Amino acid sequence: MNDTDLAFASIEEIGKLFRKRKLYPVELAKLMLVRIEQLNPKLNAYITVTADVALAQAKKAESELFAPRGRRGFRDRGPLHGIPISLKDNIYTKGIRTTAGSKILKDFIPQHDAQVVIMLEEAGAVLLGKTNMHEFAYGVTSNNPHYGPVRNPWDLSRIAGGSSGGSAAAVAAGLCYGSIGTDTGGSIRIPASLCGIVGLKPTRGHVSDSGIIALSPTLDCTGPLARSTRDAAIMLRTIAQTHSFPFGSWSAQKFSANLAKSRLGLPKELFFDLLSDDIRSVFDGALRDLRKLGATMGQISIPLLNETEEDGNQIAWAEATHYHQQAGHFPRCTAEYGEDVRARLEMGTKVLATSYLRSLYLRALFIHQLLFAMDEAGVNVVVVPTTPIPAPVIGGETTALAREEHPTRALLLRNNRPANLAGIPALSIPCGFTESGLPVGLQLMGRHTGEQTLLRIAHAYERAHPQQRRPSL
Amino acid sequence: MNDTDLAFASIEEIGKLFRKRKLYPVELAKLMLVRIEQLNPKLNAYITVTADVALAQAKKAESELFAPRGRRGFRDRGPLHGIPISLKDNIYTKGIRTTAGSKILKDFIPQHDAQVVIMLEEAGAVLLGKTNMHEFAYGVTSNNPHYGPVRNPWDLSRIAGGSSGGSAAAVAAGLCYGSIGTDTGGSIRIPASLCGIVGLKPTRGHVSDSGIIALSPTLDCTGPLARSTRDAAIMLRTIAQTHSFPFGSWSAQKFSANLAKSRLGLPKELFFDLLSDDIRSVFDGALRDLRKLGATMGQISIPLLNETEEDGNQIAWAEATHYHQQAGHFPRCTAEYGEDVRARLEMGTKVLATSYLRSLYLRALFIHQLLFAMDEAGVNVVVVPTTPIPAPVIGGETTALAREEHPTRALLLRNNRPANLAGIPALSIPCGFTESGLPVGLQLMGRHTGEQTLLRIAHAYERAHPQQRRPSL
Repeated sequence: MNDTDLAFASIEEIGKLFRKRKLYPVELAKLMLVRIEQLNPKLNAYITVTADVALAQAKKAESELFAPRGRRGFRDRGPLHGIPISLKDNIYTKGIRTTAGSKILKDFIPQHDAQVVIMLEEAGAVLLGKTNMHEFAYGVTSNNPHYGPVRNPWDLSRIAGGSSGGSAAAVAAGLCYGSIGTDTGGSIRIPASLCGIVGLKPTRGHVSDSGIIALSPTLDCTGPLARSTRDAAIMLRTIAQTHSFPFGSWSAQKFSANLAKSRLGLPKELFFDLLSDDIRSVFDGALRDLRKLGATMGQISIPLLNETEEDGNQIAWAEATHYHQQAGHFPRCTAEYGEDVRARLEMGTKVLATSYLRSLYLRALFIHQLLFAMDEAGVNVVVVPTTPIPAPVIGGETTALAREEHPTRALLLRNNRPANLAGIPALSIPCGFTESGLPVGLQLMGRHTGEQTLLRIAHAYERAHPQQRRPSL
Repeated sequence: MNDTDLAFASIEEIGKLFRKRKLYPVELAKLMLVRIEQLNPKLNAYITVTADVALAQAKKAESELFAPRGRRGFRDRGPLHGIPISLKDNIYTKGIRTTAGSKILKDFIPQHDAQVVIMLEEAGAVLLGKTNMHEFAYGVTSNNPHYGPVRNPWDLSRIAGGSSGGSAAAVAAGLCYGSIGTDTGGSIRIPASLCGIVGLKPTRGHVSDSGIIALSPTLDCTGPLARSTRDAAIMLRTIAQTHSFPFGSWSAQKFSANLAKSRLGLPKELFFDLLSDDIRSVFDGALRDLRKLGATMGQISIPLLNETEEDGNQIAWAEATHYHQQAGHFPRCTAEYGEDVRARLEMGTKVLATSYLRSLYLRALFIHQLLFAMDEAGVNVVVVPTTPIPAPVIGGETTALAREEHPTRALLLRNNRPANLAGIPALSIPCGFTESGLPVGLQLMGRHTGEQTLLRIAHAYERAHPQQRRPSL
C-alpha cells in the first residue's frame, strides 16, 4: 500500500496492518505529520499540530501493541489503538491550547481534558492536533477571521462548511482517520456533507459535553467525523457515555443486512422546498439506490418543521449570548470577535425571555409531532439531503437558488437544525457528486437512541456504493 | 365537644371520634357547611362551596368506615377518611369550576382532576369547596378584584395573605381541617403566617403539579395548609408522589423527641435586614423557646441571598407571561385581568432571555452556596421569620418600616422566595402574636427532601407551646 492509500485506509484496515506488524503506529503518525506539513498550508484544517504529543502517544501505542502477546506491557486497547485522529479546537485538551477558533482564547491552555478526550486517550488514539473551525462554533462557513478560512479539499476556493470545518477537511484529505466535532445546528453534518465524508450527530446526551466550550446547551451535541460509517461507529462507540450502546451488534453480519425491512420517511415540509438542481438529482439517484437495496419509502407530514428555523434561532441566540456573558467574553471583548459572530451575539441580547420559552415549548410540540408522524407512517428513519447546495465559494454570503439570492448560512442550516431541536441522532453520508465534482450528502435522521439503525442503513448503502474518488491535492 | 371545639379539632382527634362512633362524617360535613354558610360571607374564603359533592363523599366515607369491621363494604382509608378539606381554586377538579381567582376562567370546568385531587379522593377526604386566592396565584394579598378580598380571621380589615389566602383563612377559621395550596414565592407560607396556621411548601417535585394551573414552573410547589404540624404531615403524606417519604417514622415517639441534636442556622443576609419591631420581638421569643428545648444556633452567611429578589422576579415574570401567552389568555384577554396581575404580565414581556438564563444560572450558584454554608455550619435547618410584618390592612399597597414606606408585596415575599429558588422545603408555623393580636409565623427551611426534619422540629416546638387562641368571629 502506498502512502496515499495508507492515508485513506479505514480504521479497521490500519488496525489489521498494525496487528500483522505490517505497519507501526510511530511510522503512521510520522506519515500523517508529513502529510499535514505538506497539505495543511493549502487547507488550513489544523490550528495547532501536536506533533510531540502524537509521537509520544504513537510510541506508547507501539510499545503496548507490539510487546509480545502475553508478555508484560502487552495491551490491545481496541480498534482506535494507535489511530491518528484530530479534535475540533473547542474541545478542552490539558496543556494544549484550545482556541475555539477565537482571538479571545488564542492563548487559552486548559488545565484538564474534556471527557471525550479522556475516553479517546484510554482507547489509545493518537492526537495529531486541534482543528480549525468557525469562531466559537457560531457559524457554518469556517471562514475564520483569526486563523484563516478552512478550504474544501475538493475545491480550494470553496468552504469546507462548519462549524467543524477543519475536522471535515482533515478527514476528507487524509490528514487523520477521524475527528471529533460538535453540532448545534448542523456543525458536524454540514462540513461532512460539503467535504464528502460521514458525520454523525448523536442523540442529545449520548456523548458527554463536559469540557467542551458551549454554544447552546439545549442543542449542542458532540460526535465523530470519519470516512466511513464503520469508522464513525468505532469512534462513537469510544466516546459514548451510555453503556446501553450495544457493542456486539456491530458485527459484520448485522452490517451486511439488506434494507428490505427499512421504511424511510420523506417529510413533506421544509427539506425539499429549496434545493439546487444538482443536489436534487444526486439525492434522487441515492433514493433509487436505497430502493434497489430493498428500502421502501413513505411521505410524512410534520407541519412544525416550518417553525424550526425560528425556534432554533431563538434558543441558540439567547443561550450563546448568555454563555458568552457568563464566560466574561461579551461584551467585555466585543472588539475581538469576528464581525458575524459579534452580530449574532448582539442579536442574542434582544431575544425576549417569553420568545425563548415559547421556542422551548414549540420544540416539545415539534418532537411530539415528529415522533407521532414517524409512528403513523411506520418509519424509523427520515431521509433528506443534508444541505440544499454543494459547497459555496469562500466569502459567498448569499447563494442564488430558485431565481433568488438566499443567505448561505440559512441555506446550509435549514435541513440540519430540526435534528438538534428534536435531540434525535442524524447522520450525513456521501451519496455522490455534482457535475462540477462537489460532494453531496444524504442525511438520515432517527429516533432518540437510534444511532444503530442509522449506521446500519448507511453502511448497507455505502457497501453497495463505495466511495471511489479522492480529492486531488 | 361543642360544635366550635369540633370545628377546631385536629384531624387525628376527628379520626378517633369517627372510629369510636362518637361522630359521623355526614354530620361533620353538615356542621362544616353550616359554618361556611355563617362565616364565609365575612371571610370570603371560598369561591365555590361544593355542598353536594361534600355530602356524597361524606356519605360514602360513612358507609365505608361504619360498615361492621370485616363485613362487605367496610373500608378504612386512613387518617383523611371522612375529613372535610378545601382546595385552592387553581387546582383542577373534574366537573367543578376552577377559576384560579380569575374572571377569564370564571366558567371553566375541568374535565379531569389534578393528581393531588385523585390522591385525596382515594384517601377518602371530603371536598367542601374551592378557595379564594390571588388572581392566577400571581400576588400575595388575595385582594381579589373579581371575587372580593379574602379577609383575615384575626382582623377582618386585614388581608389573609396570598396567594393561597382563602385556604389559610378557611383553615384558620375552622371552615375545613386542611387545604391544599400552591407556593411560587411564598403563596402557602405567607397566608399561613398571617393567619396563624401551619403552611408547608415541600421540596420541589415532591408533590405532583399535574392538573394545577402553572404560574412559574421552575418555582411552583403544591403543599398543605393545616392547623398543626401533625395535620400538615398527614396531608403531605397523602399527596406526596415519592414513595421514599417514610411513613413509619411519623410515630408519636419520633415526634416527641427534644431538640438537643438540632442545630439551626440564622442567615446573616436578607432575612433580618428589615423586620417590624413586633415581629422581631415575637421571633426572638420563639428562638429562646427553641433553645430551651435544646436547639443550638449558629450564624451562616449566604451572600447570594441578596440576589434572590431579582432572580426570583426575572424567572417568575418571564415564565408567568409565557404561560399566559401559551394558554391564550394574554394579551387576548388583557382587559379581564386585575390591574396588578396585568402589570406583572406586562413586566414579563420585557424580560430578556439572557436575564432569564442568568437568573437560572445564579439560582444554581445560590443553591450551591446555601447548601455549602449549611454544611460548613453543621446545620440542617435555617430559621427565620416568615414575613417581616404582620397582616397588613386590605388595600395597603405600602407599609411603613424602618422609617420608610416599602411595597407591601415585596415585604411579604422577601423571606419566602429563597426557598422557591432553592427548591428546598420550607414550613411556616405560628410562633405567637403581636401586641395587637395578629399572628406571627416562624419559618423553618431544610435541605432538599428534608420535610421530616422540619416537621419534627416544628412539632417539638408546637407541643411545648400549643396554640391557645382562636379567632373570634
